[in-house]
Amino acid sequence: MKITKDLYQGSLALLTDFYQLTMAYAYWKSGKAEQEAVFNLFFRKHPFQGGFTVAAGLDYVIDYCKNFKFNKEDIDYLAAMKGKDGQPVFAKGFLDYLSEMRFSCDIDAVEEGTVVFPNTPLVRVKGPLIQCQLLETPLLNIINFQSLIATKAARINLAALGEPVLEFGLRRAQGIDGGLAASRAAYIGGCSSTSNVMAGKLFGIPVSGTHAHSWIMSFETELEAFEAYAEAFPDQSVFLVDTYDTVNGIKNAIKVGKALRSKGKEMLGIRIDSGDLAYFSNVAREMLDEAGFPDAKIVASNDLDEHIISSLKGQEASINVWGVGTKLVTAFDQPALGGVYKLSAIRIEDGTFVPKVKISQQSMKINIPGIHNVKRYYSKGKAVADMIYLEDQEINPKAALIIDPNDPTRRKRLMPYFYQEETLLKEIFRRGELQYAPPSIEAIRERVQVQLGAFDKAHKRLVNPHIYPVGLEENLHNLRMNLVLQAKQTEDEDQPEK
Amino acid sequence: MKITKDLYQGSLALLTDFYQLTMAYAYWKSGKAEQEAVFNLFFRKHPFQGGFTVAAGLDYVIDYCKNFKFNKEDIDYLAAMKGKDGQPVFAKGFLDYLSEMRFSCDIDAVEEGTVVFPNTPLVRVKGPLIQCQLLETPLLNIINFQSLIATKAARINLAALGEPVLEFGLRRAQGIDGGLAASRAAYIGGCSSTSNVMAGKLFGIPVSGTHAHSWIMSFETELEAFEAYAEAFPDQSVFLVDTYDTVNGIKNAIKVGKALRSKGKEMLGIRIDSGDLAYFSNVAREMLDEAGFPDAKIVASNDLDEHIISSLKGQEASINVWGVGTKLVTAFDQPALGGVYKLSAIRIEDGTFVPKVKISQQSMKINIPGIHNVKRYYSKGKAVADMIYLEDQEINPKAALIIDPNDPTRRKRLMPYFYQEETLLKEIFRRGELQYAPPSIEAIRERVQVQLGAFDKAHKRLVNPHIYPVGLEENLHNLRMNLVLQAKQTEDEDQPEK
Repeated sequence: MKITKDLYQGSLALLTDFYQLTMAYAYWKSGKAEQEAVFNLFFRKHPFQGGFTVAAGLDYVIDYCKNFKFNKEDIDYLAAMKGKDGQPVFAKGFLDYLSEMRFSCDIDAVEEGTVVFPNTPLVRVKGPLIQCQLLETPLLNIINFQSLIATKAARINLAALGEPVLEFGLRRAQGIDGGLAASRAAYIGGCSSTSNVMAGKLFGIPVSGTHAHSWIMSFETELEAFEAYAEAFPDQSVFLVDTYDTVNGIKNAIKVGKALRSKGKEMLGIRIDSGDLAYFSNVAREMLDEAGFPDAKIVASNDLDEHIISSLKGQEASINVWGVGTKLVTAFDQPALGGVYKLSAIRIEDGTFVPKVKISQQSMKINIPGIHNVKRYYSKGKAVADMIYLEDQEINPKAALIIDPNDPTRRKRLMPYFYQEETLLKEIFRRGELQYAPPSIEAIRERVQVQLGAFDKAHKRLVNPHIYPVGLEENLHNLRMNLVLQAKQTEDEDQPEK
Repeated sequence: MKITKDLYQGSLALLTDFYQLTMAYAYWKSGKAEQEAVFNLFFRKHPFQGGFTVAAGLDYVIDYCKNFKFNKEDIDYLAAMKGKDGQPVFAKGFLDYLSEMRFSCDIDAVEEGTVVFPNTPLVRVKGPLIQCQLLETPLLNIINFQSLIATKAARINLAALGEPVLEFGLRRAQGIDGGLAASRAAYIGGCSSTSNVMAGKLFGIPVSGTHAHSWIMSFETELEAFEAYAEAFPDQSVFLVDTYDTVNGIKNAIKVGKALRSKGKEMLGIRIDSGDLAYFSNVAREMLDEAGFPDAKIVASNDLDEHIISSLKGQEASINVWGVGTKLVTAFDQPALGGVYKLSAIRIEDGTFVPKVKISQQSMKINIPGIHNVKRYYSKGKAVADMIYLEDQEINPKAALIIDPNDPTRRKRLMPYFYQEETLLKEIFRRGELQYAPPSIEAIRERVQVQLGAFDKAHKRLVNPHIYPVGLEENLHNLRMNLVLQAKQTEDEDQPEK
């Protein structure tokens, strides 16, 4: 096994769950492979008990779809699979079909950096059943993780109140790409830089870093270590002061800072990575100010997240730059966004699309049927509400009613006529052809800030946020209710003995 | 950006923290780049409040080191970096040095699948300071994550009491490799198969899966969907029964099971993915038994982890096969193992290695100095204790004393003479040359079971496990204490004003 050579070359078509392939085979055998269907990728609950989610990962999805193809090795692997009877699992005709299959779906998606809410589609895939199905796992893998981390990063940056947040989580990230994709999403969410050099190279994002405790320990004394570092980086020295004793470390940093100044250079600051950050940052600030270094920055790190940063702010810690690792890149307090991908419509023989619902014992888990889109309404630049609506439905401009998908008694009357509106799902692919020019990562990062700026503070509160109204347009609500009642009735008829 | 084409091709040398490169540069500038050092990778606390950890990831580390090289693109990227003054960050001489650098370290490591404990080295790197430093981040990334997931998988499999556990977490995994590496580690930890087809292909591990709710919904009725699936997989049908109504779903599965039987085929079983798993699995068992299908398996899934599986076992749920996803592949309740990598010795001009400690305000964070190894002692096949010792230290065979690294009052007297022993760190690389034949993944998976078998049940308890004794050999303990006291004294002398 060679991670550097074999792992990600060629096709990623097998980056999917095996049941997608068994279903693909069964669709093919039943003559349903090319039947057109519509699937929606959405989540049911904001992560981190928060009030918003930042969508991310679309650029990866575009790349995945553009390059979607079973290559010869993939087919050989599938051809060699044997069932319990020793016979091949997949018929040759099916494998030929797979090897000739080309991505031909329509995809609509919210742009990366968009603030999104539960139940609204982030990605909508329309195309041959077999392709929709095979895409389920990779799309979920990509969107779930990157949206999770972009959201975490946005929360952490909100807590830092505009001060720089440096991401340096690679060493605790979940695998190689768990690090790379996390660095990308963290930057999108508002971080200033990453420590991950490969992410810097691949995504064109700023990298930063200075030195570790091992640097200090490799010298006889801390002072020598600081001096040697200042020699190598006279303009970019941040001294890590807590290897042996923090107060003494600050003194040594000041000594070297003075020596630098005598050569016309300025140290950038110090870093504290352990101990009581509130206490030591204030001690450091006082010592640095007294020594004539009021502009030296104090960088703090050590298991920080949005809650600890808020608490340190509340304690008036003298921290200027926040280093965040593990808690950000693994989304420590909730390491998965529970995004799902559900069939919502299927085209039948007469050419029409039939809306579909999955019934569940938890009404929260009943999906939204039909081919739908989302409008976000703004009043004076502030987001008022999101409406999920059937794409071919005309909206009453003077009195549109939206109904909460989980609580039909929560309703809101909207007057679209008086609002600005934004349709969230954009055309990405048509019949497999890319229709969309992905923005730069800087533009995506900027979009997050613009989007967040349109929402009231109350929705962005870290704890117990106010719930932003998102509802089904009246006709979509009625369609859903009818389908559910119909399905439940059919069940009851099916089982008179119950 | 092309994940399929660019992301993992060529060199992974830049998969590191930027501060490793700034330190590398400063080492080079100070003439210390080739100074020999020893670093240890270890963790301080078992994950999941558990009593053991399973080491994994060494095969990736070997691959990483074998292919370690800065290629032209990497160097070009670094050469283009500018400081605040607009000048290149790195001098050309340094970049030339990097591009000619070849991995030349000695590496010793515990084998994959070994049960390990806090403070004991999992990987020990000895070599030029600059190389040791550059390897820190990738080694931590790989070992931290794979050990975390192998441990989680081992716990989940212990809870399942030998029944098959299927891993299907790809859709919620943290990135592409967060899925692939997790599938590998989950299999090592004891899972029977993965849903991740690419992991199956890359690592040669079994894949499994049947169908999703969308399969059912793409047909007019559930019965038609089951029939079509049975047609495609007459020998391998597991029917997902909870799309509309679980009891009715079981009835439909039985109908199709009978039809299969009339053709000489047998359904494998059913799957329940929602609702009360204890209740519905017992209902299903009764219905299947009554209908003449006592051998049909009941597969359960839905946010399972070791605690929920234990609870379902306690409730006498009739579940035969456990499907585990998100909670396993993200290690949901603790998504990072806090492994660290610390300098423990450095060679000085006279050719000797000087042991090093990092002082910390938390005594738990003081590392273990010197060049050390670990012996595990067995009595009648049962593990008795682990001893961390200086590699050049002779051990008293009749009365070796080990002392808890965090509590010097906890001591244990061992009689190595009467025990079997195993030295845990094995030679992996010498001067950059591989000395070790990595075992197959099946052998690693087997090793986990053999290793776990040597430990008392009490250490493997999921909650409040009994602590297995691991201590520093007396001489190593004394060395460490002296170094700490010495360092603290130096500090005090440095700052008489305190």
